[in-house]
Amino acid sequence: MARQPIGIFDSGVGGLTVVRAVRAALPGEDIVYLGDTARVPYGSKSARTVERYARACQAFLLGHHVKLVMIACNTASATALPALQAASDVPVIGAVEPGARSAVAASRSKRIGVIGTLSTIRSTAYERAIAALAPDAAVTTEACPLFVPLAEEGWTDDDIADAVARRYLQRLFERDRAIDTLVLGCTHYPLLRDVIERVAGELAGAPVAAVDSASAMAAAAVDTVGTSAGDAGAAGSLHCYVTDASRLDELAPRFLGEPLSGFDLADL
Amino acid sequence: MARQPIGIFDSGVGGLTVVRAVRAALPGEDIVYLGDTARVPYGSKSARTVERYARACQAFLLGHHVKLVMIACNTASATALPALQAASDVPVIGAVEPGARSAVAASRSKRIGVIGTLSTIRSTAYERAIAALAPDAAVTTEACPLFVPLAEEGWTDDDIADAVARRYLQRLFERDRAIDTLVLGCTHYPLLRDVIERVAGELAGAPVAAVDSASAMAAAAVDTVGTSAGDAGAAGSLHCYVTDASRLDELAPRFLGEPLSGFDLADL
Repeated sequence: MARQPIGIFDSGVGGLTVVRAVRAALPGEDIVYLGDTARVPYGSKSARTVERYARACQAFLLGHHVKLVMIACNTASATALPALQAASDVPVIGAVEPGARSAVAASRSKRIGVIGTLSTIRSTAYERAIAALAPDAAVTTEACPLFVPLAEEGWTDDDIADAVARRYLQRLFERDRAIDTLVLGCTHYPLLRDVIERVAGELAGAPVAAVDSASAMAAAAVDTVGTSAGDAGAAGSLHCYVTDASRLDELAPRFLGEPLSGFDLADL
Repeated sequence: MARQPIGIFDSGVGGLTVVRAVRAALPGEDIVYLGDTARVPYGSKSARTVERYARACQAFLLGHHVKLVMIACNTASATALPALQAASDVPVIGAVEPGARSAVAASRSKRIGVIGTLSTIRSTAYERAIAALAPDAAVTTEACPLFVPLAEEGWTDDDIADAVARRYLQRLFERDRAIDTLVLGCTHYPLLRDVIERVAGELAGAPVAAVDSASAMAAAAVDTVGTSAGDAGAAGSLHCYVTDASRLDELAPRFLGEPLSGFDLADL
């Protein structure tokens, strides 16, 4: 059991932020990562398709004998977590509950904003997760479809990023100007953290904290597998699979925080 | 033969512009359309993945006994046309050669700009197609990854669309200010035609004509199947398949020019 790897998947490479957080929290663990880059994005697609693809991703990881499945993709977590849990013999951790937990911990006013893909927002999964943790919290949500292509284009802090962030966040703060915490409910959004926090702060007239799921997911992984796994001192391995390699060398390091040492192609 | 439908596929719903042009040119023909909306977009992915998915789309259409395959997707045409022609017993028409033909016909200066997805631009297919038609033409290209999400968001003629178009087109006109014709090398780009033509005209200091593949593809279809097919006077049918139905009711009419009368889901 201790020698089995942890499996992490995402619709693309954004989930490498979760890999990074898990390696920091559990440096001795082996990790198998799958990015479904051939079918990315999930966030604009129906729950039916997202669940179908997420099931295939999980089956791939289970085929690699992982002891834990982590769904780094917010969209897949928001729409398919119960189905994936039902289909797995090992624990499955999604991105939504940890993200909600971080937001509730960070918020003083309990007025929380959530931004994410169309599918994540449509699912109302964050509202439900936050309500379960803090029934008195008020949650306001907004889908921000252009944030992922902006982040992939590398236009993360310029006049266009500012204008796009302003248009989306205005819709959010018009509905609740007292929001003090914003959930970055998509693995790409942390690349836009600076512009999002700056524009949100201007619209709120007070600092707004942007939280994401990565570190809270890593904490949940520690709770699940414990910290004793792996040989003491020996660094765990990282094995990456992707379904398409286009722009991988360019995009992966932005999320992993270091160059990718290698990968294999998988046809799902 | 005359009673067999024409098959048209695209990575998404943008190819409905080709359906519209074919119906106008050949109103008696039956059409089977496939939009691979579950795996859209193709334009950011590798040639390997695009060819794999395009083969599956074509096989689906051939299974519906089409007499002609039309690849409405510029990315699939640019990367997979030879492979699809080799795998088909019926004629296969791509989007690139017709688009190149339109551009050469429209350009006086023979200084032609081409904009498209990353994969289309990377393929150099338009340069090769234009060179085959007009060896003296000078072709300048630029990938515009944000145009598709902008068009899908419906932000087609505002300050953000203007700023994005200006950034991409500046890169193009900096390299050749004498461009008089611009190929819209992606089925989504005609939705941004107004802003593209306006910004291009400002950068060139003279009117720039934006051409696309749809009507030239329809003309190629007429050349291939003739105009006699179908019962005289009887309108042909349109049968649409998609691999994902998300936002279909909202997006499809923008390209087809009328509401979609119905569709079926296909799992590729």
